Amino acid sequence: MKTVRCSIIGFGAIGQGVAEVLLMKREYLESIGLDVRVVAVVDSKGATVNPDGVDLADCLARKREKGTVALEKLTGLEVIKSVEHELVIETTPTNIKTGGAGLQNMLAAFEMGRDVVTSNKGPLAMKYRELVETAKAAGCRFRFEATVGGSMPVINLVNEVLAGNNVRSIKGILNGTCNYILSRMIEEKASYSDILAESMELGIAETDPSYDVEGIDTACKLVILANAIFGLDATYRDVGVTGITKITPEALDMAYKNGHVIKLIGEVSRDRIHVAPRLVPINHPLAVGGTLNVASVDTELAGEITVTGKGAGSIETASAILSDLVAIYRDC
Amino acid sequence: MKTVRCSIIGFGAIGQGVAEVLLMKREYLESIGLDVRVVAVVDSKGATVNPDGVDLADCLARKREKGTVALEKLTGLEVIKSVEHELVIETTPTNIKTGGAGLQNMLAAFEMGRDVVTSNKGPLAMKYRELVETAKAAGCRFRFEATVGGSMPVINLVNEVLAGNNVRSIKGILNGTCNYILSRMIEEKASYSDILAESMELGIAETDPSYDVEGIDTACKLVILANAIFGLDATYRDVGVTGITKITPEALDMAYKNGHVIKLIGEVSRDRIHVAPRLVPINHPLAVGGTLNVASVDTELAGEITVTGKGAGSIETASAILSDLVAIYRDC
Repeated sequence: MKTVRCSIIGFGAIGQGVAEVLLMKREYLESIGLDVRVVAVVDSKGATVNPDGVDLADCLARKREKGTVALEKLTGLEVIKSVEHELVIETTPTNIKTGGAGLQNMLAAFEMGRDVVTSNKGPLAMKYRELVETAKAAGCRFRFEATVGGSMPVINLVNEVLAGNNVRSIKGILNGTCNYILSRMIEEKASYSDILAESMELGIAETDPSYDVEGIDTACKLVILANAIFGLDATYRDVGVTGITKITPEALDMAYKNGHVIKLIGEVSRDRIHVAPRLVPINHPLAVGGTLNVASVDTELAGEITVTGKGAGSIETASAILSDLVAIYRDC
Repeated sequence: MKTVRCSIIGFGAIGQGVAEVLLMKREYLESIGLDVRVVAVVDSKGATVNPDGVDLADCLARKREKGTVALEKLTGLEVIKSVEHELVIETTPTNIKTGGAGLQNMLAAFEMGRDVVTSNKGPLAMKYRELVETAKAAGCRFRFEATVGGSMPVINLVNEVLAGNNVRSIKGILNGTCNYILSRMIEEKASYSDILAESMELGIAETDPSYDVEGIDTACKLVILANAIFGLDATYRDVGVTGITKITPEALDMAYKNGHVIKLIGEVSRDRIHVAPRLVPINHPLAVGGTLNVASVDTELAGEITVTGKGAGSIETASAILSDLVAIYRDC
């Protein structure tokens, strides 16, 4: 049995999802020879630390009751620097202007020789090359399947399962909120603002929805794909971005009568990174509804391979983090 | 650079696709440290053998001109037993009654300590457990992504990318010929027999189409999924099978008017392996047209993950064989 000591830095929906998944999967992890022990959990108010392993059920209960997991005044950065562990699970909120605390946390983790698995897009959309090179120089593993498409596998699908197959382009729907709004506008023949209001009530759109509806979230995910799959050195600034705020029910209706839906499509290739509303034939694999995400990978040998799945959700995203954790520690 | 000596046993469409892909990917394989050298190519008339590596372009040209690659009278089994190599690429025609030559070839390969990568469903649908246990006892690697869904990744997707995620069921369209026939029957409001005739002319259906249209091919693929993913010990005889030969254009039309298509759906779970025509909502991820294959994996943590791709084609299937080859030799 190999012991993997890890920290969970950021204890919002996704960090809590990770804790729940680790509780659910203890037996499975032991069956593949891994004793995964969380030695620290950190949120914005402080940390819980126990070198022998914190009680995750306690952490979840305390977070629910008191709004914080904190038992001592320690930041993520301090935990990363002072607590002995192998893996930092970085799930702090994304910040695409500066990379935020996540960027500092990841760089510090590599400096301390710790591996990183993350769902945090900001640092990768801003400083991909620096992060990957710092990890490599330190001999650390760095995986981030959860940053793109939640539980829908894209990065590991292409880099592992489709190994050897040149990828010409990837295009898809990478934001569930936009997909929900456009799908509902067709179903209800309702305006953008009406359905946006509905989405906020349902918790599908954020109180400030601009990050989603203006295409920024999709753009960040494309940058990560551009760097991780096409080997580019792109940042958010290299993406042409148009959102969905100006789409009318009339435009959707006219498209539908001609056998098409309008979707916010992100596309990335070696030459171009681009987000914009586009017409998609109704029976095309990209024409999925609801909050689903979808990515169509155009490969040299295998043609188009399309994958569809839930792009968000705490347990779903945590499952991508689990896969990355398993991939790092299973065979070595 | 690690040298991987391999044989190609079976030089029909898929075997030739493997030769073409290995020629195309020589540089890529070298870039990941692999010198893949084909030391023997075998078809039903005989073999070409060269311990230093045969000329694959020559083999392809000879096959095209003379109908055979044979330069000497050796069977696949004799090559496997007498020529030194690490990997047997088994691409002989499938036989679901006895497992055919493929079964003997694979067992002999393991006895000789050779790894096997295959696209040949028959042996796996008949003798999965025996093959896997023989491989394991001999310390050999055994991979078969190409047996299910051609280039559409399913087995490696679930067992590697979704590691740790319990799979509750897999359902999908696993036969492109049936999908083509049903899609065309709707488009043309034409009868099963008319579209079957068209499919034969186009080479999409075989001269004897029963293996496809009666659901046997789908059933074999389900058996492989049942064994490889759910850990069962199933054979073709455990599958409930209904084909598409009795579907009428009227039934398809009525379904369509109610927002559905009829598809030949294979479904596998721990409790049930089953193939039958089923209604699928038009906007459902399983409702893909043409000759596409699709598989929807219902997972415990990530919900449904659906993958769509080309289920057949020599280069497409060879690309799945390439991925398996890379997975075996890249990191060890």
